[in-house]
Amino acid sequence: MNKKVAIIMGSDSDLPVVKGAINTLKNFGIAVEVHVMSAHRTPKQACDFSSNAKANGFGVIICAAGKAAHLAGVIAAHTTLPVIGIPIKSSTLDGLDALLSTVQMPKGIPVATVAIDGADNAAILAVQMLAINDEELSQKLDKMKSDMTQEVMEKDEKIQTEMWWKM
Amino acid sequence: MNKKVAIIMGSDSDLPVVKGAINTLKNFGIAVEVHVMSAHRTPKQACDFSSNAKANGFGVIICAAGKAAHLAGVIAAHTTLPVIGIPIKSSTLDGLDALLSTVQMPKGIPVATVAIDGADNAAILAVQMLAINDEELSQKLDKMKSDMTQEVMEKDEKIQTEMWWKM
Amino acid sequence: MNKKVAIIMGSDSDLPVVKGAINTLKNFGIAVEVHVMSAHRTPKQACDFSSNAKANGFGVIICAAGKAAHLAGVIAAHTTLPVIGIPIKSSTLDGLDALLSTVQMPKGIPVATVAIDGADNAAILAVQMLAINDEELSQKLDKMKSDMTQEVMEKDEKIQTEMWWKM
Amino acid sequence: MNKKVAIIMGSDSDLPVVKGAINTLKNFGIAVEVHVMSAHRTPKQACDFSSNAKANGFGVIICAAGKAAHLAGVIAAHTTLPVIGIPIKSSTLDGLDALLSTVQMPKGIPVATVAIDGADNAAILAVQMLAINDEELSQKLDKMKSDMTQEVMEKDEKIQTEMWWKM
Amino acid sequence: MNKKVAIIMGSDSDLPVVKGAINTLKNFGIAVEVHVMSAHRTPKQACDFSSNAKANGFGVIICAAGKAAHLAGVIAAHTTLPVIGIPIKSSTLDGLDALLSTVQMPKGIPVATVAIDGADNAAILAVQMLAINDEELSQKLDKMKSDMTQEVMEKDEKIQTEMWWKM
Amino acid sequence: MNKKVAIIMGSDSDLPVVKGAINTLKNFGIAVEVHVMSAHRTPKQACDFSSNAKANGFGVIICAAGKAAHLAGVIAAHTTLPVIGIPIKSSTLDGLDALLSTVQMPKGIPVATVAIDGADNAAILAVQMLAINDEELSQKLDKMKSDMTQEVMEKDEKIQTEMWWKM
Amino acid sequence: MNKKVAIIMGSDSDLPVVKGAINTLKNFGIAVEVHVMSAHRTPKQACDFSSNAKANGFGVIICAAGKAAHLAGVIAAHTTLPVIGIPIKSSTLDGLDALLSTVQMPKGIPVATVAIDGADNAAILAVQMLAINDEELSQKLDKMKSDMTQEVMEKDEKIQTEMWWKM
Amino acid sequence: MNKKVAIIMGSDSDLPVVKGAINTLKNFGIAVEVHVMSAHRTPKQACDFSSNAKANGFGVIICAAGKAAHLAGVIAAHTTLPVIGIPIKSSTLDGLDALLSTVQMPKGIPVATVAIDGADNAAILAVQMLAINDEELSQKLDKMKSDMTQEVMEKDEKIQTEMWWKM
Repeated sequence: MNKKVAIIMGSDSDLPVVKGAINTLKNFGIAVEVHVMSAHRTPKQACDFSSNAKANGFGVIICAAGKAAHLAGVIAAHTTLPVIGIPIKSSTLDGLDALLSTVQMPKGIPVATVAIDGADNAAILAVQMLAINDEELSQKLDKMKSDMTQEVMEKDEKIQTEMWWKM
Repeated sequence: MNKKVAIIMGSDSDLPVVKGAINTLKNFGIAVEVHVMSAHRTPKQACDFSSNAKANGFGVIICAAGKAAHLAGVIAAHTTLPVIGIPIKSSTLDGLDALLSTVQMPKGIPVATVAIDGADNAAILAVQMLAINDEELSQKLDKMKSDMTQEVMEKDEKIQTEMWWKM
Repeated sequence: MNKKVAIIMGSDSDLPVVKGAINTLKNFGIAVEVHVMSAHRTPKQACDFSSNAKANGFGVIICAAGKAAHLAGVIAAHTTLPVIGIPIKSSTLDGLDALLSTVQMPKGIPVATVAIDGADNAAILAVQMLAINDEELSQKLDKMKSDMTQEVMEKDEKIQTEMWWKM
Repeated sequence: MNKKVAIIMGSDSDLPVVKGAINTLKNFGIAVEVHVMSAHRTPKQACDFSSNAKANGFGVIICAAGKAAHLAGVIAAHTTLPVIGIPIKSSTLDGLDALLSTVQMPKGIPVATVAIDGADNAAILAVQMLAINDEELSQKLDKMKSDMTQEVMEKDEKIQTEMWWKM
Repeated sequence: MNKKVAIIMGSDSDLPVVKGAINTLKNFGIAVEVHVMSAHRTPKQACDFSSNAKANGFGVIICAAGKAAHLAGVIAAHTTLPVIGIPIKSSTLDGLDALLSTVQMPKGIPVATVAIDGADNAAILAVQMLAINDEELSQKLDKMKSDMTQEVMEKDEKIQTEMWWKM
Repeated sequence: MNKKVAIIMGSDSDLPVVKGAINTLKNFGIAVEVHVMSAHRTPKQACDFSSNAKANGFGVIICAAGKAAHLAGVIAAHTTLPVIGIPIKSSTLDGLDALLSTVQMPKGIPVATVAIDGADNAAILAVQMLAINDEELSQKLDKMKSDMTQEVMEKDEKIQTEMWWKM
Repeated sequence: MNKKVAIIMGSDSDLPVVKGAINTLKNFGIAVEVHVMSAHRTPKQACDFSSNAKANGFGVIICAAGKAAHLAGVIAAHTTLPVIGIPIKSSTLDGLDALLSTVQMPKGIPVATVAIDGADNAAILAVQMLAINDEELSQKLDKMKSDMTQEVMEKDEKIQTEMWWKM
Repeated sequence: MNKKVAIIMGSDSDLPVVKGAINTLKNFGIAVEVHVMSAHRTPKQACDFSSNAKANGFGVIICAAGKAAHLAGVIAAHTTLPVIGIPIKSSTLDGLDALLSTVQMPKGIPVATVAIDGADNAAILAVQMLAINDEELSQKLDKMKSDMTQEVMEKDEKIQTEMWWKM
């Protein structure tokens, strides 16, 4: 049976961004568990969750946090599961603070960082990790990839049939 | 049998940084294949390698590149394997250009980005991905984690026995 | 006969910015071909287009992309035609990511980068390139330049006749 | 009796910077305890130390860390003592990553951040906090302040007597 | 009796941000005095206030200013009380100018800097300083901390009962 | 006969960087003219050179300047020839000032900007522009491109035969 | 008789910002001349204006421009009058491009740079320059300074009488 | 008689940069007074000097400071003389902190900011200000300007006679 993916956000205000990750994972048929936990306000809960995540059937943990985004790093400190970090853009500095706080991890404790507010890609990356040893999942990824290609090609075709720029 | 990990660097001048990743992977007993390929100078080779990577027994691809670091993104375009990006610091802008070029990937094609020059963490992250379904590898990661803890604790003890700052 | 100019955007959401380039080129009587192609989602299409661009009568290729903007670099990898890059501002980082991803190209594969969202200038630059050996086009550029001068001079005159700041 | 000050560094490589803080505190007669602890490699030790710091007689905790500097935030999560953060400059990004990771703390868990590599000021700030209710310490701070003034005034006088720039 | 906390803002336009600090301090039962003073437009008033702050019963001074935010540094120049700086985001540069102007203080004169627009944390930090020698205040901080934990845990529970993402 | 390329540097201290461009152009058999001219110290000379460049047989102008790099923009103001800008890294800000001063040109006056210190690419870009209507030059570019590919492939082969990382 | 001040903007879209400077100068009774001129679109007009500015009775020239803001530098190239630069914030990069393009002038040609969009301060600075040898103007500046002080003190008093934060 | 120029540096470690300004002013025959004063360590001295500067025969004040460079702003708060700020590059952030702390002054108190470490230009700017009403000084500036032009033209001629790049 497939491992589950945990999605942890530092604040429930991150939910609008994080929803993209939840939906993407569900479309791949991955079991998801969603939590609000804070590296600073519920450190014990975060530590407990992370320490037991592997035993509880999780394969990957996705963390979303803004500003001085310590959540992914703190979760990664207590597990050897791969941890994916989504830097969240907040009201100042355009997400640069969250990006650097998430990606610049010291030697020994990596966080797999995706783009600022890049929740969809965090989910796809989690699926890619789970698919390393899951051929069925791997084929779903192939399908998604060719759908994306198709979608762009249709947009290209559509623009060819729009005459305005040809005249 | 364990999947292999590919390490691709955009230029052979990146080797001093990338060596850390090679050694880490070998310490975990992971089969490694190292390549110099360029998104811009050998695009066909990069495309071919990536398109066939899964069939050739790879589980994860690590890409290291500096400046406008397109390598990880271009490799990720041709595979559904997880791709890890190491932004390399070059002679200007302190690695910020490589970091943003690697991490800010558009929706659909994630790159798991680690810290600037963070080759060791790229390797550990690759092992974590492979360990999702490999209990033996997972235990090696546990061992590495407790070794790291031990090492820091010994440094802390050592500083307690150094009297200079107590007097 | 004049060479054509290709305008490739990474996403159809870039069209509002790119329109400025299309209109400018049409005003100069240059034949334009507009495409939606993605370095990451339709890499094969991008590669094919670029590899055949010269044979298909193109003289210059303009690429517009945001975030980790690899499009111009990927197109430049497959052609010796001059490639112009327009960094597109997206929802975070104010276009700095796209600018650095476009301009900081490694040795051997230049991208002629214009300002963030600078589509009009991309078009004018393309015309300047085509005009190197086309005296008629060159005179149209002279005309545009003197029109611009005239326009600024009229604005200056107008402000001289507005009395409010003189009283 | 005066409360102690703890100085925690994320890596023993931070010691050359941190020494300034140790010496400054000793000059004020403050009892100091120095530790190497890591938010990511010894999270349990960091949590335990912080949770018990107040009971163990500490009044202020100073944390020094580089890159994605989570140490001060993680320590602050487990105590209500004031926590002072020193962002350490590392090999890339000139300390900006450590500064943003330390200062941009979310609502509820402040970290009193000083300048990049500003260990002396971290120590002085700790003394200022302890001096709020300690008149003797407060007078030592007054003395230090007037010494600093004196030192600058002497430099100014010295430059007046150096004739080179007057001729 | 508890020391008072002063809150000084460089412009009355900072009041909407600063209100958070005032309310937080009042909730802890701390006496607050609020001022509009400018390092540049009322330097004498700022100097006088700061020079006499300790004698007037203040224990901590909080300063909020935007752009080239000199206020906290100028206040700190005239007192040995701990000074907390709140960098205020203004119409350009997203608060980076105020952050650097506040935090990068030279050796000898620290400013305890909190996040951009982080007024609540400035207040909590002031309470933490006053609580070093005030057990009652310290217990109120413990209470606030466990309330925050409770609040996050309730949000986490609530999200568990929302079925949409489980289906 | 082929058009000439002008290389103008703002200061003779830029020569070490600019040499790369000179040599590249000579390798392609392009006639080069090198000048030291300053937008601010010899504005008249810069204006005269640019105004007459087309009549004097130039096809492209390359400008290299550091700090507030106005040279390329000022040259572009007086000609309709394509102008290529090389931002030069100076003693502060790592070339970011020169990059933004060169690339962020207002509507109407483009500067084709290459990477910071990217003199070789400036030369290649100039050749690409001249080759639009010069099949012989275009074939030399094809040759350079396949040489680059060959060079990277040889480096890749070499690394395959180095056994150290395989054992 | 007092020297005049010229205010030159690179585009008439800068007028809303520049108006602040015009009004401030008029309040001091300084004769003002306002122009729209562009370093790139009307270089000859800019050169002529600047070359003759001193002879035409100007004492100071204020230049406002956005993006790659070359205007102040180009004006300064043709005159020995002091030139004040106002970097204008445009649609991307929050004015950082204009600030660096204006302030980072090479040795020999200074531009007196004020804050991004800081038109009022540009005007006050111009008055300060003219007042060096004009006691009447100097006294008007003293008056403005004490008015500013008064205004801040009244705001401070007003906030003391607002009871909400005292209760 | 000509007004004097004051040069104030925040630390005597700034002297190597500031020397350029001293020498330049002396070459113009301007009387200079050099001081070490600190906005934070000798605020009273700075305030006194500035308040009396005009009465003491100064026409312009130049201030050099690094990090959170408040010196120019604090000096400007106490005088209506024009104040020129030189941001000094220190060990971190490449001078960006000093630049923003110096240039982003709030409305009412301008600081005429020059480039990071731009001491020569600070001196030239001071001379330009004094020359507004001093024809002799103005002619010296004309002479310096034409000398600079001559120097660049000679460098250009020299490079024409160096044959290496022509062959």
